[in-house]
Amino acid sequence: MEEEASRRWLEGGSLPWYVAGSQLLGVASVVITGVWMGHYRGGYAWDGSRQEFNVHPLCMVLGMIFLYGDAIMVFRAFRNEAKRSVKILHGVLHLLALLISIIGMVAVFQYHDARNIPHMYSLHSWCGMLTFVLFIAQWLMGFSFFLFPGATAWLRRAYLPLHVFFGLALFGLAVATCLLGIMEKLLLSISETYSEFAPEGVLANTLGIVLLAFGVLVGYVVTRDEFKRPPHPEEEALSVHFKTLTDGGSVSP
Amino acid sequence: MEEEASRRWLEGGSLPWYVAGSQLLGVASVVITGVWMGHYRGGYAWDGSRQEFNVHPLCMVLGMIFLYGDAIMVFRAFRNEAKRSVKILHGVLHLLALLISIIGMVAVFQYHDARNIPHMYSLHSWCGMLTFVLFIAQWLMGFSFFLFPGATAWLRRAYLPLHVFFGLALFGLAVATCLLGIMEKLLLSISETYSEFAPEGVLANTLGIVLLAFGVLVGYVVTRDEFKRPPHPEEEALSVHFKTLTDGGSVSP
Repeated sequence: MEEEASRRWLEGGSLPWYVAGSQLLGVASVVITGVWMGHYRGGYAWDGSRQEFNVHPLCMVLGMIFLYGDAIMVFRAFRNEAKRSVKILHGVLHLLALLISIIGMVAVFQYHDARNIPHMYSLHSWCGMLTFVLFIAQWLMGFSFFLFPGATAWLRRAYLPLHVFFGLALFGLAVATCLLGIMEKLLLSISETYSEFAPEGVLANTLGIVLLAFGVLVGYVVTRDEFKRPPHPEEEALSVHFKTLTDGGSVSP
Repeated sequence: MEEEASRRWLEGGSLPWYVAGSQLLGVASVVITGVWMGHYRGGYAWDGSRQEFNVHPLCMVLGMIFLYGDAIMVFRAFRNEAKRSVKILHGVLHLLALLISIIGMVAVFQYHDARNIPHMYSLHSWCGMLTFVLFIAQWLMGFSFFLFPGATAWLRRAYLPLHVFFGLALFGLAVATCLLGIMEKLLLSISETYSEFAPEGVLANTLGIVLLAFGVLVGYVVTRDEFKRPPHPEEEALSVHFKTLTDGGSVSP
């Protein structure tokens, strides 16, 4: 038993390293996107030009990847802080992710309009819109169930695993959508030199791998048993996590 | 308690519907890929021509998506069968997935060689090779730990959550790689008409959404607590799942 306990502690003790690693990858993904758009694609503007398009990848990687990933890791990174504060931080980070994504979405729609490029024809746009709409739905559901005081403990307990599963699935979808965006942008901009390993292509491919690594690391931190929030006795009366608490309780009208 | 038990039973009882739904989506993804390559891209061959390339998407969707997805669902779909049989089925389905993927990989490399197209320049190829290499490593690790008799119960128990996590992560990576392949193929073949909603583009986008839906459904079936394998008393002596069994045991040399 002691060996088992010490193994769990050791594994749980490695959490800060995983969190630090994820932050390095998250920052790297934002920086690489910034360099790609800033150095190879001509910088940023807000005038319907090609430079306005460049705001789109930067906002989406910052909002839907880095902030989204951090938002779902707060329950592990701050697993010994008061749960209510962590929940509020989780909701606020997601809201920030949403606002930054909206700027990114507006940028690409305005760019399309200014150039008479049709909207929503590519698989990237289909996946992106799906992610965006479901992300808003997930945020509203999460707010109603876990921050708004109306929901009963029974309802919260029933919804929690769904919230966690769809939150992670949507995060995976966001990463996949970014990879699709990278592929689309490269084939529309440097289709002649991409197959000759042009530096821009290699940089953008590397961005894709960094995004993937960030996604897998966040998924690992969030799902690993050893990293879960330990029971905090003072929270038990309020918690929705302890199955014994309201077993047999029925839904309040 | 009774209400809770009946809720769990009801949810567990919906498992066959989820499995049936996943099979519909899995078959649909293979059929749509077949139609796309057969009808819009000129059919199949094995002579270095464009038709040999067409073998690649069909094999990858059949192997790395449909068979891979089914392989990780067998522990749920057959959760009341003898565990050893289910483990062997899991390994055999993955082996079949691997063999079919190898045919698909050979097809695209031969096609590139015949046309003097460089290998491994696109993000799709980077993600695909990563998935393929890690898939083989995962299969070998799984075989050594769970089918080969050498591993101790302690080792199996320590490795199981990693096997499950990386198995699912690789499955997600396989789905993302397929989406990248769809995007790449469309932009290399119908870049002029893709933005005009050409039927081929809409069909291929739809394939992407079907692949995503299959991936999410498989992920849901595999991770949902209610669908887990119930304890089978006759297996307890052999099981690696029951933590009480070998607690405190040390690793055999």
